[in-house]
Amino acid sequence: MAGNSFGEIFRITTFGESHGKAIGVVIDGCPSGLKLDLDLIQHELDRRRPGQSAITTQRKESDTFEILSGVFEGKTLGSPIAITIKNEDPKPDDYAHLKEAYRPSHADFTYEMKYGTRDYRGGGRASARETAARVIAGAIAKQFIQQAGIEITAFVSSVGTIKLEKSYLDVDLAKAEGNIVRCPDAEIADKMIALIQDTRTKGDTVGGVVTCVIKGCPIGLGEPVFDKLHAELGKAMLSINAVHGFEYGSGFEGTQNYGSKNNDAFYTTAENKIETKTNFSGGIQGGISNGMNIYFNVAFKPVATIMQTQSSVDKEGHELELKGKGRHDPCVVPRAVPIVEAMAALVIADHLLRHRTTQL
Amino acid sequence: MAGNSFGEIFRITTFGESHGKAIGVVIDGCPSGLKLDLDLIQHELDRRRPGQSAITTQRKESDTFEILSGVFEGKTLGSPIAITIKNEDPKPDDYAHLKEAYRPSHADFTYEMKYGTRDYRGGGRASARETAARVIAGAIAKQFIQQAGIEITAFVSSVGTIKLEKSYLDVDLAKAEGNIVRCPDAEIADKMIALIQDTRTKGDTVGGVVTCVIKGCPIGLGEPVFDKLHAELGKAMLSINAVHGFEYGSGFEGTQNYGSKNNDAFYTTAENKIETKTNFSGGIQGGISNGMNIYFNVAFKPVATIMQTQSSVDKEGHELELKGKGRHDPCVVPRAVPIVEAMAALVIADHLLRHRTTQL
Amino acid sequence: MAGNSFGEIFRITTFGESHGKAIGVVIDGCPSGLKLDLDLIQHELDRRRPGQSAITTQRKESDTFEILSGVFEGKTLGSPIAITIKNEDPKPDDYAHLKEAYRPSHADFTYEMKYGTRDYRGGGRASARETAARVIAGAIAKQFIQQAGIEITAFVSSVGTIKLEKSYLDVDLAKAEGNIVRCPDAEIADKMIALIQDTRTKGDTVGGVVTCVIKGCPIGLGEPVFDKLHAELGKAMLSINAVHGFEYGSGFEGTQNYGSKNNDAFYTTAENKIETKTNFSGGIQGGISNGMNIYFNVAFKPVATIMQTQSSVDKEGHELELKGKGRHDPCVVPRAVPIVEAMAALVIADHLLRHRTTQL
Amino acid sequence: MAGNSFGEIFRITTFGESHGKAIGVVIDGCPSGLKLDLDLIQHELDRRRPGQSAITTQRKESDTFEILSGVFEGKTLGSPIAITIKNEDPKPDDYAHLKEAYRPSHADFTYEMKYGTRDYRGGGRASARETAARVIAGAIAKQFIQQAGIEITAFVSSVGTIKLEKSYLDVDLAKAEGNIVRCPDAEIADKMIALIQDTRTKGDTVGGVVTCVIKGCPIGLGEPVFDKLHAELGKAMLSINAVHGFEYGSGFEGTQNYGSKNNDAFYTTAENKIETKTNFSGGIQGGISNGMNIYFNVAFKPVATIMQTQSSVDKEGHELELKGKGRHDPCVVPRAVPIVEAMAALVIADHLLRHRTTQL
Repeated sequence: MAGNSFGEIFRITTFGESHGKAIGVVIDGCPSGLKLDLDLIQHELDRRRPGQSAITTQRKESDTFEILSGVFEGKTLGSPIAITIKNEDPKPDDYAHLKEAYRPSHADFTYEMKYGTRDYRGGGRASARETAARVIAGAIAKQFIQQAGIEITAFVSSVGTIKLEKSYLDVDLAKAEGNIVRCPDAEIADKMIALIQDTRTKGDTVGGVVTCVIKGCPIGLGEPVFDKLHAELGKAMLSINAVHGFEYGSGFEGTQNYGSKNNDAFYTTAENKIETKTNFSGGIQGGISNGMNIYFNVAFKPVATIMQTQSSVDKEGHELELKGKGRHDPCVVPRAVPIVEAMAALVIADHLLRHRTTQL
Repeated sequence: MAGNSFGEIFRITTFGESHGKAIGVVIDGCPSGLKLDLDLIQHELDRRRPGQSAITTQRKESDTFEILSGVFEGKTLGSPIAITIKNEDPKPDDYAHLKEAYRPSHADFTYEMKYGTRDYRGGGRASARETAARVIAGAIAKQFIQQAGIEITAFVSSVGTIKLEKSYLDVDLAKAEGNIVRCPDAEIADKMIALIQDTRTKGDTVGGVVTCVIKGCPIGLGEPVFDKLHAELGKAMLSINAVHGFEYGSGFEGTQNYGSKNNDAFYTTAENKIETKTNFSGGIQGGISNGMNIYFNVAFKPVATIMQTQSSVDKEGHELELKGKGRHDPCVVPRAVPIVEAMAALVIADHLLRHRTTQL
Repeated sequence: MAGNSFGEIFRITTFGESHGKAIGVVIDGCPSGLKLDLDLIQHELDRRRPGQSAITTQRKESDTFEILSGVFEGKTLGSPIAITIKNEDPKPDDYAHLKEAYRPSHADFTYEMKYGTRDYRGGGRASARETAARVIAGAIAKQFIQQAGIEITAFVSSVGTIKLEKSYLDVDLAKAEGNIVRCPDAEIADKMIALIQDTRTKGDTVGGVVTCVIKGCPIGLGEPVFDKLHAELGKAMLSINAVHGFEYGSGFEGTQNYGSKNNDAFYTTAENKIETKTNFSGGIQGGISNGMNIYFNVAFKPVATIMQTQSSVDKEGHELELKGKGRHDPCVVPRAVPIVEAMAALVIADHLLRHRTTQL
Repeated sequence: MAGNSFGEIFRITTFGESHGKAIGVVIDGCPSGLKLDLDLIQHELDRRRPGQSAITTQRKESDTFEILSGVFEGKTLGSPIAITIKNEDPKPDDYAHLKEAYRPSHADFTYEMKYGTRDYRGGGRASARETAARVIAGAIAKQFIQQAGIEITAFVSSVGTIKLEKSYLDVDLAKAEGNIVRCPDAEIADKMIALIQDTRTKGDTVGGVVTCVIKGCPIGLGEPVFDKLHAELGKAMLSINAVHGFEYGSGFEGTQNYGSKNNDAFYTTAENKIETKTNFSGGIQGGISNGMNIYFNVAFKPVATIMQTQSSVDKEGHELELKGKGRHDPCVVPRAVPIVEAMAALVIADHLLRHRTTQL
């Protein structure tokens, strides 16, 4: 109800302000008997971590997670899994100038209006630091769905105006992690990196698109009519900070198509499986996975923290100037890749379990 | 859990197969004391109805709704409001040819796989007829939110490659209902209509985009971190049949922007209100409405029912040919306008109520 | 949220006022492929129906149910099952005297205060007529759980001070339906009937207790820590009109026991099953079914509608006298038996499905 | 879904095994702006703590809570409040003997069957240690509802066969905390204490009843038809370890009444308020609070851990003897008093917020 939980059966609740004592997550409904690989959890956190490369913010964040419950002798118990990450000691002075000011396109103003209060230190609850909790939970969801043969891979398909024009089918997805911008095409990756570095120099930020592919998803996931699989994926993605758009399968471009082109004809494979010749449906028909690859795009706006002077107002509405200071992330899109994967894994894990209750 | 409910407090549950006895909706959580205008409900249904104009399917549907409960002496009681629409008597022979066949890009295959059964008559539960129930519920939600001064207007902004290039700010939204394609620009509307008529002639279908604007939304709606207002709107839209994409504010195009352009500077109006000079945020910051206009785009693929012969398979995987027959909708986008508005109204109604519990 | 839904996966939503157009229920989450016996549904409704015997109210109620959706060719589709029962035409004059008055120990006063309005005809939403919708849903739940070998039997174990002192183990449960008071001991049944008839003569009402036994429940149902199986059963029972108490296993009496007596020792049966020698636990340990019989008692207060003059107040607080008129139910406990079974079946059906998601 | 959350708007999720790293709770939906008195939280924990008096177990438990999030400058932010209590280092050897054995009337067997695994150290998730998390959350809920003028007081009304025969109206509730058994009648309290001490000497345990009174509850709380206020209270109480029964108002005894006695006549007070002359309804009519005192009884069985040798079986079904060892709680009922209050406070807090959404 208050918005900090996600999922119906595989259900997470995240908590924590950016500069409070800790952030964390409780996962309720993770099946018992799952052997957890803790290194994989840390690996996913490292992919999200600030300061991981030359094109991210150089800010340091503690990211040592601690499992408080729900795991015994290396396996899940079926009880809630609570995991925390301690925050560094906040230095209140660093944020004193934000106590009264509303930063443009941040959540300062809306939080203050909604709650009548806010933790102004580092964005408080609205900080993207909250996504670390999602990545932890997603890393556990990934381990659960891998047992069902499902693999999720996301990559950066555009940064600003630099766009990977190829389909995900025409690149080697395994190469996405081979460069710091996480684009599977080395040439395009270099251009993206150059653009981000240039953007940093200007004290500015730039947006981009993350593409995500889910392979091996069994037929039947998704609950019509409201919890269609793509509607759940869409909500998951749109809940990530800075996301302004979601499309799957033929997406916005497909609105220009005729049905005669856009329809996916069924045929029977040599292995006697029913598949479709094309996949404009993006692996989902009528809200239910059809066994083909699921793929979708997620649009990230340029993040709001820039190193330039901006005009704004304070609580009383007095105009003021805000100066950029400290470190910033010129483009969060590469660091968003593991977050997109995590949210996708949470949706799929939840629907794998929901689907168990469908038939007699 | 099984996917037929939407909303947390203002919560609807829809039911009904296309050719079963009836379709309908139960609204639980509509506040008591709301005076209902039944004509407005019928008006919204009429906007969605097949056969309303020369560019829609000429199929007839019964659409006389009956309120079974929850309303007494013209006002809501606070108890569940159940409303049904009877279906016409199905003629089973019309659908016998679909009993064994999977129509391309329909939900036939996935429903059969998920549930082990399906009502093959007219698409059963997967039929867009289900959206009539949403429109009824949305018409009640609209009446609730109008009391809070909120107005929702949607219109068609593209059909196939014909696109209204102007912003919603540069057209007269009131004119959208002035033509059968529901585009507020008469010239573009004519082109859209011509395209749809041409598409019908070819026995084909074409997609398009609906743009929706919410004016007068109070500051503070939306529940971070997962139930951000735009994430809820996105899920609502993506749950509508044939929708493949959602974007709000600066959307996909904004991914190409720099932060220095995309940030919305705050200022104080003459009436001493804090507003933003630009509105790339689309009226939502940090997942919470900021009082500016909310606007978003919804992408509809061309619908799957075409009047052309297509190859497909039957349950046993044998290949077959499906011939188009009967009537079809060459472009559902104009009829989707009231559905988009209905789903938006349901989201806003729910969040108006959720917001009541935020502060001490 | 607004209280008209029950269950998480096998989830029902009931609707309808006593003298509105219809009452009904939507069942969402009933697994697909369940062959429905409609006669069994009618049979359960008949067990609940007013006027079924000399000791119930002689009021007539329409009780012809109609399935609107979710069932195709005799089997469930996995989509929502909507079922309605039309109400008789209300005669407004019959209730005009209640428009302004609050009947003692009815819900008139609290509904008016909570909602600012009420349908005063026949109790409106607070009428026990609403339980017919539960009985319909329960009859479907029963058919689902019977497939898992689970049988639910309830009976009347006390009426006023007339009490069946024997344990459920010492009577033939099948005999409960053999008399109109639904007590499996014929001698006690006669005394109960006599008491009820005497109570009717006085224009009074009397309470009683229903005992319910669930046999064949598999080990493992119930979700600690809050959704313990007995907590869910307790809530289900307490939600039935006029219920004031619930106890399971050793119940209130067991509070007087020592642990050394009350503990249920485990042993291994000849069939190599682990069972307990005694069953003070009532078939549930730690909130989870242990495979032994589940049994519990449900306390019903005497219903509030009596044929005697009572003092009360009207909306303005003016004192007035209310005269009993029409027909009344001197003791609802026999008619509550199928309602108790229905609610128990709904809980078990839901937990059977929930349990499917527990383990890897 | 997996059972570790309670409440709809004021919603808690507890986590933690008895001998894992920590237990804790996340509260989502606590309104913003609530000034928290941390000493009151500690005070409630101290009332629940083992070792607090001569009649409880002498086991020591760490009970220093730490707030990780959701509170800033002494007030709630409206974001999730996460609170943990670290566990003492477990000594695995203490529990090695329980690894394979199922203790009678504990949850060992059912957890193993349900989850296929269990944390056998100190009862794991099934340990009553989990209730410390409820007490913390309840202490915050209490502070919220106190702002609405609501006070909750529970006390011990029976231990074994020693029963306080007086109504709660005829004792001074403030005296309940004046003795270690928490019975407001000093004479009866002494008898209870003597019984408990005698029970301890025998290495046995004994049950009892806690009575709870809610004063100052506004009219209108509770959501018919399923979430009736007493149904929610009942579920809350039945979810507490060792609880086997719940009754409110006239309860089980009232089943023996005639309606003419049991009905609560309305009248108008000198202050022009509508009240009832008697209160057999227990402050709740039709599932909605009517402004009178709410009162109910909660039945606790004797806890299962006794210091006597008992026969049982191991995982393979082999019979064995279990010896009592260590310390035990001869009667948990006095320590259950703050737990009952906490759960009641959580229900009332949730329904205070839910009620805000009822009317236009």
